[in-house]
Amino acid sequence: MKYEYLSNTPLEEAREKFLNSLKEAGTAYKTEVIRTRDAAGRVLARAHYARRSSPHYLSSAMDGIAISSKLIESANESSPAILKQSDFIMVDTGDPLPEGTDCVVMIEQVVENGDGTISLYSSAAPWSNVRQIGEDVSMGDMIAPSFARITPSLVGALLAGGVLDVEVVKIPSVALIPTGDEIVDSDSDLKEGDIPEYNSAIFSGMLAEWGAKGVVYPIVRDDPKLIKEVVSSAAKDHDAIIVIAGSSAGRDDYTSSVLAELGELVIHGIAIKPGKPAILGHIGPVPFFGVPGYPVSGIIVMEKIVRYALSMLTMIPAAEPEEVEVTVTRKAPSSLKYEEYIRCQAAQANGKIVAVPMSRGAGIVTGFSKASGMITVPQNCEGLEAGASIKMQPFRKLSDIENTLCVTGSHDPLIDEVADILIRSSGNINPVLISSSHVGSMGAITAVRNNEAHLGGIHLLDTETGIYNLSYIRKYFPNGGAVLIRGVIREQGLMITKGNPKGISGIKDLPGLSYVNRQKGAGTRILLDYLIEKEGITPDQIYGYTKEEYTHTAVAAAIASGTADCGMGIYSAAKTYDLDFLHLWDEQYDFLVAESAADDPRVLKFIEVLRSEEFRTRLEKMGGYVLKDTGDTVVI
Amino acid sequence: MKYEYLSNTPLEEAREKFLNSLKEAGTAYKTEVIRTRDAAGRVLARAHYARRSSPHYLSSAMDGIAISSKLIESANESSPAILKQSDFIMVDTGDPLPEGTDCVVMIEQVVENGDGTISLYSSAAPWSNVRQIGEDVSMGDMIAPSFARITPSLVGALLAGGVLDVEVVKIPSVALIPTGDEIVDSDSDLKEGDIPEYNSAIFSGMLAEWGAKGVVYPIVRDDPKLIKEVVSSAAKDHDAIIVIAGSSAGRDDYTSSVLAELGELVIHGIAIKPGKPAILGHIGPVPFFGVPGYPVSGIIVMEKIVRYALSMLTMIPAAEPEEVEVTVTRKAPSSLKYEEYIRCQAAQANGKIVAVPMSRGAGIVTGFSKASGMITVPQNCEGLEAGASIKMQPFRKLSDIENTLCVTGSHDPLIDEVADILIRSSGNINPVLISSSHVGSMGAITAVRNNEAHLGGIHLLDTETGIYNLSYIRKYFPNGGAVLIRGVIREQGLMITKGNPKGISGIKDLPGLSYVNRQKGAGTRILLDYLIEKEGITPDQIYGYTKEEYTHTAVAAAIASGTADCGMGIYSAAKTYDLDFLHLWDEQYDFLVAESAADDPRVLKFIEVLRSEEFRTRLEKMGGYVLKDTGDTVVI
Repeated sequence: MKYEYLSNTPLEEAREKFLNSLKEAGTAYKTEVIRTRDAAGRVLARAHYARRSSPHYLSSAMDGIAISSKLIESANESSPAILKQSDFIMVDTGDPLPEGTDCVVMIEQVVENGDGTISLYSSAAPWSNVRQIGEDVSMGDMIAPSFARITPSLVGALLAGGVLDVEVVKIPSVALIPTGDEIVDSDSDLKEGDIPEYNSAIFSGMLAEWGAKGVVYPIVRDDPKLIKEVVSSAAKDHDAIIVIAGSSAGRDDYTSSVLAELGELVIHGIAIKPGKPAILGHIGPVPFFGVPGYPVSGIIVMEKIVRYALSMLTMIPAAEPEEVEVTVTRKAPSSLKYEEYIRCQAAQANGKIVAVPMSRGAGIVTGFSKASGMITVPQNCEGLEAGASIKMQPFRKLSDIENTLCVTGSHDPLIDEVADILIRSSGNINPVLISSSHVGSMGAITAVRNNEAHLGGIHLLDTETGIYNLSYIRKYFPNGGAVLIRGVIREQGLMITKGNPKGISGIKDLPGLSYVNRQKGAGTRILLDYLIEKEGITPDQIYGYTKEEYTHTAVAAAIASGTADCGMGIYSAAKTYDLDFLHLWDEQYDFLVAESAADDPRVLKFIEVLRSEEFRTRLEKMGGYVLKDTGDTVVI
Repeated sequence: MKYEYLSNTPLEEAREKFLNSLKEAGTAYKTEVIRTRDAAGRVLARAHYARRSSPHYLSSAMDGIAISSKLIESANESSPAILKQSDFIMVDTGDPLPEGTDCVVMIEQVVENGDGTISLYSSAAPWSNVRQIGEDVSMGDMIAPSFARITPSLVGALLAGGVLDVEVVKIPSVALIPTGDEIVDSDSDLKEGDIPEYNSAIFSGMLAEWGAKGVVYPIVRDDPKLIKEVVSSAAKDHDAIIVIAGSSAGRDDYTSSVLAELGELVIHGIAIKPGKPAILGHIGPVPFFGVPGYPVSGIIVMEKIVRYALSMLTMIPAAEPEEVEVTVTRKAPSSLKYEEYIRCQAAQANGKIVAVPMSRGAGIVTGFSKASGMITVPQNCEGLEAGASIKMQPFRKLSDIENTLCVTGSHDPLIDEVADILIRSSGNINPVLISSSHVGSMGAITAVRNNEAHLGGIHLLDTETGIYNLSYIRKYFPNGGAVLIRGVIREQGLMITKGNPKGISGIKDLPGLSYVNRQKGAGTRILLDYLIEKEGITPDQIYGYTKEEYTHTAVAAAIASGTADCGMGIYSAAKTYDLDFLHLWDEQYDFLVAESAADDPRVLKFIEVLRSEEFRTRLEKMGGYVLKDTGDTVVI
């Protein structure tokens, strides 16, 4: 067993040391000359100066007549100047100013007398309505300095100044080399143990946003000789190299030793989480990055390190992300050893932005795409207390965050359908957006009570009365202040391996089977507990009772994969996974909202969707739902 | 003479009426299916759901050993669990969890006993360090809703969920049809009267930023039959049509009649300035825009109208631009008839952002590329007073505006060189940026005194003492508070048509010649006035004394084009234009700065550049400068 410890270099120090080593190694941008017409979005490699003036001749700024201003010096309302045909020349906008004239009178001010002469009722200053030579730009003027980003209007300014070709910074080519024996093309059929390769696609997209171009290599096996061969050839063909995975110090991690042989290893291990096992160095002047294989770790290393180094090749500044102040809703502990990055879902509530820390797993790439932003817990900080104020780097526009309805609580795929209908029905013009998280029904009550979420999905059975939700809300909102929005009746039951090979006929069969449960506080788990108690079964009799999943689909996925025989969930999840379904219960799934938020326009839109035909159609297609009083509200 | 009045429809009304007419005409986005790997930056046409779970099997989250958690239930510091080789299996990150095991212990916690057995000193919970099936995403879960912009991380999430192809909104193809008899390709050699065509390049760049693709047509003559033919064919091949120029109501403006014949003309004339003569309509469901030929007018119509209509085809929201509060430094009058857009140069001074309104000419495209942002004076408003607070739409990042040094006053091309050196020497990492404007030396004193600019370029001759600048500053800063930064000594003289065909030998020859002057308050004009007075010449003896230009290069351009015989200016401008130069005077060109700003880090960087070798080299190349005490400061 081989194990090497990595360094734990603080981020700033690692970045500085690395960038300095690149400077010393001569890392620098290249240039090329391209047509100005095609240059929008590129970066000027040097200052560019006008090669001609614009306009390049005296020209009329209007449709009208060109005259000598002296002819109408004394014209006024009561005594117009009368001009004969030889005194004036018709000109259109852009026409050259005719010899002997020095101003243009707008066509609207010309009165025709019918005999070929015209009357003008006011005087005009010399050069009025005449565009001077170089009015826009004069030959020799600097149009833009070095490293200016070429906006569309700068394309126009350059062409106006006769700059038909520009010297721009060449788009750096970055080799993306995925490695690993277990890695397969993401387009393949996956066998157990196969890990689909999609980091190269994520990183290519990021590189494009930063003005670089990713070139994806075929996957390289965990063989130091092969890796060395590929890297060594890539160093000749590209301006930077990113080796994906193999950056840690495990049995099959060869990236650092390959780099040390071919070039200079500058840093191995940064005090960030995720992203620690990053490798930074260079092969000659070509920057080299060993990026961890977990996608979230990889994205962080790209953002926090690669982006900065690439700006030496793109000359596009790696600006620090703009940030907004948020209030975190939950305690977020963090290690003293690392600077830690936590994705958050954010929404505006009571005039401030609240951020709910999301799952931090380094493999959870959906967390990135669902997040509203990311907060940074500094190194040497034990974490954040609930209610702490901190800066968040938003992934979305603030106006989108303002339009976001925060829905938490019990998982049901119908919430995603509502989200989609909200967007489609708006034509994507300022749609109400939904940010959803799954904390179970009890979590929903807490979150709505604490103003951490606008809406909470709940299905809480009062086992004494058989009535759902109302008694729980009354208990936690003893003085009122809550509104219940009627949702749907949905079928709960046991999702069972296709064909029911173990012959499961009900709750009583659970002991001896392999079960997969929902997390504490989930309505589905509360229902299970009620049902097993009725049967006289205790949790410790059920293998897998402690194996928790957060969604119906995750439970279904576990059963479909064969890691469990059954688990409780809703019909639509069983249907999606083609599982058998043993119906046990019809439950009321509703939404809780604080009374103060009940007439929030976003909430009203949400209710509108619940009542819509489109919603009914979609839920019928999913199956296992009955819509009754859906969208009605009950004030508690 | 034909003249039709256009309507003056308020912007909001025009937009609403137009967008509604498009909706009725069936304008809608199209879709296509592409590889998810290539989809970053595109827009999902519908909600997409996971087709597989990720991970799709129980897997190790660490490099370590897989065991059954029961084996180490009671392990602790003083009594480790001893496992024999058959009890554990080595696993790497991502490996499937072996049959019969339910947790992974990190390799760092494993102590080898040397006899093949290992010791573990703590217990582990079942499923610890095991990635559950669907931990990232479960099959059937919605990964993203309709119209989601595909970020790099969403590419990853989609591929993780087995979505290998996505249905996206097709990139709309927009025909850009330049028209006009006087219009020539911008790459041509220009004759008098030729207007180079570059609007299509500007608009293509804007379309790309908005997620559409411009297809530039050859220039079409002002012939209604030809225009109709081209437009009618474009309506079959493209998703939208933009006809450039010919949108007004002049002799040769045929766009509106062509549209009326082929489709529906909805709006002709919008109450905006610039941009009034816009044409909006559609040919069947294909949106049609007649955009004015002046580039600034065109850019405004693109921004304020085309962008909104295109979002029906791209499904990318045309968000209202984010704005910042600024204080305008000068009165900005505006017509009651129009909503008017004024480009501004902005900089931070005394903690607020001050904005200097720039020239508003509809032909001044450099104004757009040099501007920091744009303010909007609403319709029915007479304009802004100096000191008024108003929202500005920034064209640059706020951090760039914060880094901007506002240099005003007398024109000298050396300011642009300083700007370029500042950027290059910073490696484009948070460079000090320069925003410069030309208001003459006297304007510089006023601007610095009023905190409207950080630095003012001045060359003001005290004709009694022959000393430059100091007496003027003492007069306008009677209580001190100013610092003079020594600039350069530069050669002033008469710039004269190449070869000096009129045999000009000095100031005394000016009467009878055609002259081109600088604006009031310019140091060069003050010098001229001094010199002609010495010769006993009065301004009215000089033809062209009232013809004002704002820069040395603009004066040189007028002479080079033959519209004037001579004008005063600096040597480097004469050299750029290959003019004869008659040296008259050596003048001191300095920079004025308020004492309170003299140690602003941006000003210190500016001084550093003045003192640099690079600056000296560049000025030597330009010619006509002597550097003496350059960068020294004199406190007044």
